[in-house]
Amino acid sequence: MISTMLENVRKNKPLIHNITNYVTVNDVANVLLACGASPIMADDPDEVEDITAICSGLNINIGTLNKRTIESMIKAGKKSAELGHVTTLDPVGAGASALRTETAREILKKVPLTAVRGNISEIKTLAIGSATTQGVDANEMDAVTEENLERAIAFIKEIALRWGIIVAVTGAIDLVTDGRKCYVIRNGEKEMSSVTGTGCQLSGLIPAFIAANPEEPLKATAAAVITMGIAGETAKKRMEPGDGNFAYRGKIIDAVCNITPEKLEKEANYEIK
Amino acid sequence: MISTMLENVRKNKPLIHNITNYVTVNDVANVLLACGASPIMADDPDEVEDITAICSGLNINIGTLNKRTIESMIKAGKKSAELGHVTTLDPVGAGASALRTETAREILKKVPLTAVRGNISEIKTLAIGSATTQGVDANEMDAVTEENLERAIAFIKEIALRWGIIVAVTGAIDLVTDGRKCYVIRNGEKEMSSVTGTGCQLSGLIPAFIAANPEEPLKATAAAVITMGIAGETAKKRMEPGDGNFAYRGKIIDAVCNITPEKLEKEANYEIK
Amino acid sequence: MISTMLENVRKNKPLIHNITNYVTVNDVANVLLACGASPIMADDPDEVEDITAICSGLNINIGTLNKRTIESMIKAGKKSAELGHVTTLDPVGAGASALRTETAREILKKVPLTAVRGNISEIKTLAIGSATTQGVDANEMDAVTEENLERAIAFIKEIALRWGIIVAVTGAIDLVTDGRKCYVIRNGEKEMSSVTGTGCQLSGLIPAFIAANPEEPLKATAAAVITMGIAGETAKKRMEPGDGNFAYRGKIIDAVCNITPEKLEKEANYEIK
Repeated sequence: MISTMLENVRKNKPLIHNITNYVTVNDVANVLLACGASPIMADDPDEVEDITAICSGLNINIGTLNKRTIESMIKAGKKSAELGHVTTLDPVGAGASALRTETAREILKKVPLTAVRGNISEIKTLAIGSATTQGVDANEMDAVTEENLERAIAFIKEIALRWGIIVAVTGAIDLVTDGRKCYVIRNGEKEMSSVTGTGCQLSGLIPAFIAANPEEPLKATAAAVITMGIAGETAKKRMEPGDGNFAYRGKIIDAVCNITPEKLEKEANYEIK
Repeated sequence: MISTMLENVRKNKPLIHNITNYVTVNDVANVLLACGASPIMADDPDEVEDITAICSGLNINIGTLNKRTIESMIKAGKKSAELGHVTTLDPVGAGASALRTETAREILKKVPLTAVRGNISEIKTLAIGSATTQGVDANEMDAVTEENLERAIAFIKEIALRWGIIVAVTGAIDLVTDGRKCYVIRNGEKEMSSVTGTGCQLSGLIPAFIAANPEEPLKATAAAVITMGIAGETAKKRMEPGDGNFAYRGKIIDAVCNITPEKLEKEANYEIK
Repeated sequence: MISTMLENVRKNKPLIHNITNYVTVNDVANVLLACGASPIMADDPDEVEDITAICSGLNINIGTLNKRTIESMIKAGKKSAELGHVTTLDPVGAGASALRTETAREILKKVPLTAVRGNISEIKTLAIGSATTQGVDANEMDAVTEENLERAIAFIKEIALRWGIIVAVTGAIDLVTDGRKCYVIRNGEKEMSSVTGTGCQLSGLIPAFIAANPEEPLKATAAAVITMGIAGETAKKRMEPGDGNFAYRGKIIDAVCNITPEKLEKEANYEIK
């Protein structure tokens, strides 16, 4: 059951170490609290190993990387994996600068990751070295659609197998796969892209869901993606006249806070391929 | 038409590179999305040229500058100008520390800017080396009022001519000039100063408006200022009992999100001198 | 009167220099504006002395410390104290990493502080070198309860005397003492811990309250704690169906914005021991 994944987050309250960008960091902290987990942010090379050691998961997000934090990401990532903790990567803007592409590749190579979450342009850049990255948003040319779905699934499965990790590609249709099974998820709203950081928030939720469900990392990742998607749908229904993207942002986090296992189970819209 | 400026932002969706402070960065990102543009934040010297190259505008804001980001501001600024992109500066707190004053001066000298936006104390500090700066807010002694308006306009025009760029001075009355024409704008609410970062948000909007309206940079800058002012007015009307500065903050961004070209045209309150 | 403390903040509008973490920095800025004070954030070693010199108080928060900002904290702290300004410390996560524990100790040793605010685990770590720190939240094992209250008061008083400063320990019951008198405060809601940064916000308010009430630093600190607690209570009453921790966050800041001296006086729930 998808809902069990959420129940376990609320029961185990995993502490998640985040090395993330300063744009959306507050939302990442609040969405982790909303889902029942606990956040801690720390990015200095002199403390990241200590901090990661007391957590159950590490969320690496390269959104506003710099030399100092890149060192921290690698150091913390190695320590986290060494301790058997969940370790995930959000390669924000891979393809937008050489530094981002190379850093994401370096992390993929040096850190034994549990999962990667990105938009299709970021994942394509890392996997095949070419995409149509446009800033931090996916390019329309790359989008997963109902038309190219089978091809996209095969492509993402192959990447997951090659990297030996879970790959989550989010967009209009979300794909979550370990290379064998692929969750095809149709929750979420297109307006979520008018709020900065909904992707970053999801990348914070993923290690929390996996840490609370160590036996079922794939299903846990899918549950995080579905939770965020349903939150986007619930929040949209709560929009009032005059509300805009700032109100939507808050209502999405509030929806994560209020989602029940029953609602998650009922509104989850996915198939497994 | 002022409203055409906004329509072009929504049509062209310019991608704006922001090297800005970590206090209000999330609001800057969300207000750029609200107006129809796209934000990207990146401040490491090793990637700022790459990032700026894929954008149409660069917003430099020295709100929480440090040695590393100062290097990035100069490097990105030069690259942006070299590529013919819109390049703007918000000299937050110039006058409050020697580092801020000198950095703002260095950027003015080394980077061919398109526009500068600040409060009157910041602009005076940079132009004549003395003002009554008090933290990041303008000092009352310096304020542009109906009484000293003509003198203030002449002063700002002279600065714009000397620097050869657009100068926007915002406060109770906003002045936007290229040295020849000056928009005198009376939109906005005094309560906007009880929200941190409304100035930073406007500084994010300005390069987006200019990038989308390259033929009319002065009118585009004025349109950004008017948009923000009307958003402040609209948001104030939506305040409910118990609401405070946090609610106001969100409602301002939501108002930018919902403003229509018709509303902008109708509620714009300005004259050209 | 507790309410006089708040009235003085609104009358004197103290400018507070914050060297704080990038997770909750925006909320710290907005809550300072909400209470009637003014925030400025600056963390580069090359400017922190200049900035501190124009302020009336300095708020040091080690939430996302790094080598550069640690240097700034010490430098600014010394300057602030030298100028006779209020200087306070929030040792976020002391005990969670060696770097945090050692930095907090170094600041306590080198900077003549006015006050320290933390959760019980952080304060225990600094005072006796052992606690059950768990990330940035207090461990339940350490909690101040009605059962161990007298012992806790004696313990905190002893620490305050030893350090020669005001110590504020916040949790379900808040204790604020200078070693002689101890305010035992029962305002606040447990849900406040589901919002990231309510502790950081309070740590921003404390130097503002003391700076505006230099003759009564202990009562001023207690008033800041009570203000935040009542804001949490007021905000809880304003929660609506569908609201979650994000809505709560905003309503807390709005409640600080709207609190009147009369309300503060009436709803303050404390005793002095």
